Amino acid sequence: MNAFSDRIRTLQPSAIREILKFTSYPDVISFAGGNPAPEAFPVQEVKEIMNDIMENDPITALQYSISEGYTPLRDWIKDDLYSKGIFNWNNDDVIITSGAQQVMEMTAKVICNEGDAIICEEPSFIGSLNSFRSYNAKLVGVPMDEDGVNLEALEETLKTYRRTAFLYLIPNFQNPTGRTMSLEKRKAVLDLAYKYNIYIIEDNPYGDIRFAGENVPSIRSMDTKGHVIYAGTFSKTVAPGLRVGYMCATKDIIAKATVALQVSTVHTSILSQMIVHRYVTKYDFPAHLEQIQKIYGHKCDLMLTNLKMKMPQSIRFTEPDGGLFIWGTLPDGDVDYFVKKAIDRKVAIVTGKAFLVDESKPSLSFRLNYSTPTDEQIERGVDILAEVANSIYKK
Amino acid sequence: MNAFSDRIRTLQPSAIREILKFTSYPDVISFAGGNPAPEAFPVQEVKEIMNDIMENDPITALQYSISEGYTPLRDWIKDDLYSKGIFNWNNDDVIITSGAQQVMEMTAKVICNEGDAIICEEPSFIGSLNSFRSYNAKLVGVPMDEDGVNLEALEETLKTYRRTAFLYLIPNFQNPTGRTMSLEKRKAVLDLAYKYNIYIIEDNPYGDIRFAGENVPSIRSMDTKGHVIYAGTFSKTVAPGLRVGYMCATKDIIAKATVALQVSTVHTSILSQMIVHRYVTKYDFPAHLEQIQKIYGHKCDLMLTNLKMKMPQSIRFTEPDGGLFIWGTLPDGDVDYFVKKAIDRKVAIVTGKAFLVDESKPSLSFRLNYSTPTDEQIERGVDILAEVANSIYKK
Repeated sequence: MNAFSDRIRTLQPSAIREILKFTSYPDVISFAGGNPAPEAFPVQEVKEIMNDIMENDPITALQYSISEGYTPLRDWIKDDLYSKGIFNWNNDDVIITSGAQQVMEMTAKVICNEGDAIICEEPSFIGSLNSFRSYNAKLVGVPMDEDGVNLEALEETLKTYRRTAFLYLIPNFQNPTGRTMSLEKRKAVLDLAYKYNIYIIEDNPYGDIRFAGENVPSIRSMDTKGHVIYAGTFSKTVAPGLRVGYMCATKDIIAKATVALQVSTVHTSILSQMIVHRYVTKYDFPAHLEQIQKIYGHKCDLMLTNLKMKMPQSIRFTEPDGGLFIWGTLPDGDVDYFVKKAIDRKVAIVTGKAFLVDESKPSLSFRLNYSTPTDEQIERGVDILAEVANSIYKK
Repeated sequence: MNAFSDRIRTLQPSAIREILKFTSYPDVISFAGGNPAPEAFPVQEVKEIMNDIMENDPITALQYSISEGYTPLRDWIKDDLYSKGIFNWNNDDVIITSGAQQVMEMTAKVICNEGDAIICEEPSFIGSLNSFRSYNAKLVGVPMDEDGVNLEALEETLKTYRRTAFLYLIPNFQNPTGRTMSLEKRKAVLDLAYKYNIYIIEDNPYGDIRFAGENVPSIRSMDTKGHVIYAGTFSKTVAPGLRVGYMCATKDIIAKATVALQVSTVHTSILSQMIVHRYVTKYDFPAHLEQIQKIYGHKCDLMLTNLKMKMPQSIRFTEPDGGLFIWGTLPDGDVDYFVKKAIDRKVAIVTGKAFLVDESKPSLSFRLNYSTPTDEQIERGVDILAEVANSIYKK
């Protein structure tokens, strides 16, 4: 007794989580989180909606509900995904989850046996990687180019790991790099999934937060064989505290996911689902998305402008078309030293190592978040980062 | 591809779930569910609370939060459990989950390797059994006496299955039988857990719904060695749709559970947690519990009185001191035939086989729920059940 299961024994709290505890001090400027901007929350509308629900349909909001999710919201999501070519009324189904994170956890549970490989972009979102680790999957990272995962390395990996459960991708404004996968790569990756007979999880939490460039069709919209499992969320477009995300896949996969969800959370908070449904149907959701895009576009631009102006030229930064993150890369040296110096000066950033499959491997990169800090914090925080950087690297 | 993981492949939706679809027809009287009585929901209070939250603390309710749960609610739970001898401030911790069901799922994930045995009372709650099945545990049932699990059979099982992860128990008003485990058995079971070095999960969803008899101390309140993992919930005392439960265990177990929850739901809906916290602290929660106890005590009494009056003497019923369920047992014959005849007459009840480790084994029992139907439905439903029973068994 007192030994934990093999799948959990070595799993650690994420490094980001530890940094976030530090950022709760009031005089710390945090570029370390990934929280949506609180000014983007529809507070007044949610208040009106809650009143409406408790006035007109309180028992539905408080009683047990079905595991698939609140039917009116599921129907709205199906329509929305159908309009984007992602949902097929004959073959597909949707289940509502407690955030997109639960999609990762359930997919690993439903698809992946212990010891199977799960292939991911490297770097990638630590929350998803830890979900996969929690089922004793063999995580294998594939390096990225500017336009997404490196195809040669991916195929080499697929040849090596023949017991691969799925390939995990964040094609839009990837966390942590902010990169977007090109249309050509999306097509090529789907072809490889067919050729090597694996699933793809297409995680798209930031797709609606595009503030520059042209939309690129999702991988699932090109999938004719049911290989792509799609994860979406209202965490970045309505509010993350409500914990409402969803999974779209073929009916057989959703049926198994429904059983998995039933034995875990039973169903997603029905009050949260009703709030989201009323918000996206009774208010001007497209206008709200435009407003969010403006807020994040402005913050990203402000941070990039300040970084370019103040930081040494030798430190490179990605220039995202959406999402929440910029990825910085040092010319040489030790990123952990740079991160520590920044934290000593009370600016929190996250080492790139946190996003690697093997966190002990070297990295020259770090992640910056621009959605949570205020404009003033962005300017002041980059000032401090620049002082730290210029003391190590020539301007 | 298209094969599911070993742990999920054979997992089926619960039989109850299928019956519940049938009970959504308006002319069906359902004794099949386990929903709390909607008249017990504090609708007006929740409405006031939501207004208060959105007026005074909306960003907390909508933003990401920590995986352990909303600190004021955790503190309230710790105080409440401390007052019952269940929580030790030096050794223990609490994490807030999406209902008690998630405690079962996480405990299996954190403690149990694939192939390990999990021992349960037989019959037992199908939702928990399916959680354990979803981690490929070897489920082993131990028969029950009127005062809880049979000790000789339990020890024999513990001797046989030396790789046992834990023993799963619902000591108060067990689902499905309505039985309460005696103090002597609770002590004896804890001793066996020490002797064979296993954990116990003490699942106590109904503990606050005692309407008769004397309170029996929880097993965890007698545990001095950290062997008992305790699961509680507000589903039956506030509202299940909010999905707020909790797990109390030693700090090391809660630390691992926190990692497991972080990679699944990230955190429990913070709005739901804030609603529950304000309800239990700003309103007269003890008075609310008394009211619920009265409602369920009345409904249970009404159903039992009608059953005794109208059903054949050869069919026996448990007489619960709390909770939501009565367990009926036929003298002989085929319970599925009886259940089918009842359903043909539009009264839904659940076959006892649904609560067995091996659902293909014989059973003479069936479960009746009295919390969801109205008084009129209870009387009318028992009338119909009695007609069916009297046509098969002599009165």
